Amino acid sequence: MPDIERYGLSRRWSDIVIYSGVAYWVEVAEDPAAEIEGQTAQILAQIDATLVRIRSDRTALLQVLIYLADLADVGRFNKVWDRWIPEGAAPVRACVQVGLPPPYRVEMVITAARTRN
Amino acid sequence: MPDIERYGLSRRWSDIVIYSGVAYWVEVAEDPAAEIEGQTAQILAQIDATLVRIRSDRTALLQVLIYLADLADVGRFNKVWDRWIPEGAAPVRACVQVGLPPPYRVEMVITAARTRN
Amino acid sequence: MPDIERYGLSRRWSDIVIYSGVAYWVEVAEDPAAEIEGQTAQILAQIDATLVRIRSDRTALLQVLIYLADLADVGRFNKVWDRWIPEGAAPVRACVQVGLPPPYRVEMVITAARTRN
Repeated sequence: MPDIERYGLSRRWSDIVIYSGVAYWVEVAEDPAAEIEGQTAQILAQIDATLVRIRSDRTALLQVLIYLADLADVGRFNKVWDRWIPEGAAPVRACVQVGLPPPYRVEMVITAARTRN
Repeated sequence: MPDIERYGLSRRWSDIVIYSGVAYWVEVAEDPAAEIEGQTAQILAQIDATLVRIRSDRTALLQVLIYLADLADVGRFNKVWDRWIPEGAAPVRACVQVGLPPPYRVEMVITAARTRN
Repeated sequence: MPDIERYGLSRRWSDIVIYSGVAYWVEVAEDPAAEIEGQTAQILAQIDATLVRIRSDRTALLQVLIYLADLADVGRFNKVWDRWIPEGAAPVRACVQVGLPPPYRVEMVITAARTRN
């Protein structure tokens, strides 16, 4: 059997899955009543917390798929994003508009490497 | 050359690609005339068949990106999903609304580990 | 620290990230004034250039997520795609409609193996 690690397991999903040194997870804001800046800041803080939990850090992000409920938010999203991304270690990203359940404004699908055993 | 396995090859796509112990594939219902429950059940049965084919099983799902044509279907989708997901081995998942060609209601992008050589 | 390679780094994203023999990147047409055929042809040429840069080639594509601004473009998209995909080595693909910033008609999220060290 392969060594698959799962964190935050529920009946419906795992919060994080790690396999072969690569971690996969999805984030939405814990408090979606916030506006786009607040939801984005929450998600990035949640990513920081997840990275600590899986023994990694911001410099090990590989790919982030960004789903916005409204592309008109992208400028405000980017202001928060740009301050958070570590210089010289940005991930690949795609940013598109999809339908999210209100009041969610943004959702991210993250792939990252583990940095420590 | 890396050892890339491809199954179900056509001019336009492969049904399954496996590289470095990780399998990638995409599913839509073979009979899209069905409602959301029927399409979901078909896709999950198709995933089971694919997992057998690639020498893996439901406990090795890493990530599933779920595309719904209408987020209003999510409750009915989840009822079928929750019954199928193995307890203690759920994948990471994202579930968003996108445009699918009618009458498709749901599409899934699956990443899974191979469990046997 | 894991050996993560990044190319085309900016404050906001990397153009390409490679980890553990797998490359991740995202493409939109450099000249989005073109119609769907032109944007698709540009992206596929850009993928060829990226594959050379990362010491790989078209036969090593694993997965392509295709985002179209309008699913009505899929027939015209496929004509260009089918001519480009190498016979016997097609990737897995999903093709859905999402919101893209105009005048972009198509965006692709690519996963590929590196073929040479």
